[in-house]
Amino acid sequence: MQLNVSKKREELGSIIYDLIEKNNLSHSGIKITLTGGYSTDGYALAKPNLVISQHLFPVPTQENFEKGIKLITYSHQRQLPQVKTIDYVMAIWLQSLIKEKRADDVLYHTNGVITECPRANFFIVTKDDKILTPADNILKGITRMKVLELAASDYEVEEKQISINDIQNAREAFITSSTKRILPIVQVDDYRIGKGTSSVTSHLHKQLLALEKTHLLQMAE
Amino acid sequence: MQLNVSKKREELGSIIYDLIEKNNLSHSGIKITLTGGYSTDGYALAKPNLVISQHLFPVPTQENFEKGIKLITYSHQRQLPQVKTIDYVMAIWLQSLIKEKRADDVLYHTNGVITECPRANFFIVTKDDKILTPADNILKGITRMKVLELAASDYEVEEKQISINDIQNAREAFITSSTKRILPIVQVDDYRIGKGTSSVTSHLHKQLLALEKTHLLQMAE
Repeated sequence: MQLNVSKKREELGSIIYDLIEKNNLSHSGIKITLTGGYSTDGYALAKPNLVISQHLFPVPTQENFEKGIKLITYSHQRQLPQVKTIDYVMAIWLQSLIKEKRADDVLYHTNGVITECPRANFFIVTKDDKILTPADNILKGITRMKVLELAASDYEVEEKQISINDIQNAREAFITSSTKRILPIVQVDDYRIGKGTSSVTSHLHKQLLALEKTHLLQMAE
Repeated sequence: MQLNVSKKREELGSIIYDLIEKNNLSHSGIKITLTGGYSTDGYALAKPNLVISQHLFPVPTQENFEKGIKLITYSHQRQLPQVKTIDYVMAIWLQSLIKEKRADDVLYHTNGVITECPRANFFIVTKDDKILTPADNILKGITRMKVLELAASDYEVEEKQISINDIQNAREAFITSSTKRILPIVQVDDYRIGKGTSSVTSHLHKQLLALEKTHLLQMAE
């Protein structure tokens, strides 16, 4: 966003560690928000404020994983997709449609080319066990990166253009996000996807949980 | 935004009059913000909060009007343009480019078709004194509406598609907004527009100021 961050990377790290120690929460997330600062008209840029906060968040249960999620598609391109902002205007506006369609979330596309969910990345597993995820016009999340790394040791992975039609030929599909880890997609619009809880998604999910555990043990040492 | 407003229109009116009386400010604006409410994850919809605030704002001087403003064009379509939101992500991101080009604001277009500025509507005056303003994919501001009404008694006015090319054939161009009223545009990208302070823009500006005065006198009675 071309805003100036007043702290260095190392300083941020130590502030975050202090915060974690003081709050002593389990299963929580750190949110770092950089604002445009206090300006008289609420629009012009001023001295940015940096807010670091820690929030408890519920982790999906094994039941959530087994149930999977249903998505609807919607034509929309997020503005400045590569920047993590708190702009969820379109996603909020679509909540009533998502509810009406008894879905869990929305999957954005442009002319049939898939990008992402409002706060999660999208993957498919093809019939020949290739793992594909969109490459362009998305926010490349940390969990997306970790899953790509994990998957690369067991499968062929590729970041490439995925169309709505490709979903209909996919054997599995799933989303990734920091708060949701990996959740299988069982339906996109009217199309049911071969039970998403099956082999590949499940294998990656187990690997991600194991990576998380290893990381936590390393931190505790 | 499909959010529920807890107050009726009349209640809102009386709250605003109370606020104006208590604050006793001159040249100020009322900002009504409806939020998604307090939710545990800062995303899911909760009970909306309604915040009404009054802010002093500087009114453009006669000097500002005579100087006019310079715009740069940028390809972007605001999401949900018909809804007044506080999403100015793209406008904020463009501030450094606007500064670099020594411009005052940005004018959005899609494939050369003009829509609006981030917080203002756009008008041109053609060589035969027609007044044109975009009709679609914009926020139809109150000042835009008032100016269209005022202009209709003296000029031919039309809400229609305006292209970047049309600007080069325009005799005058101006923006309208609640805080800026009417400001002549003297340059768009590298194209200088016949001094915007000339006849039609100036005439409409005088009429708008007169309308404002009449309205204030009526309120004071």
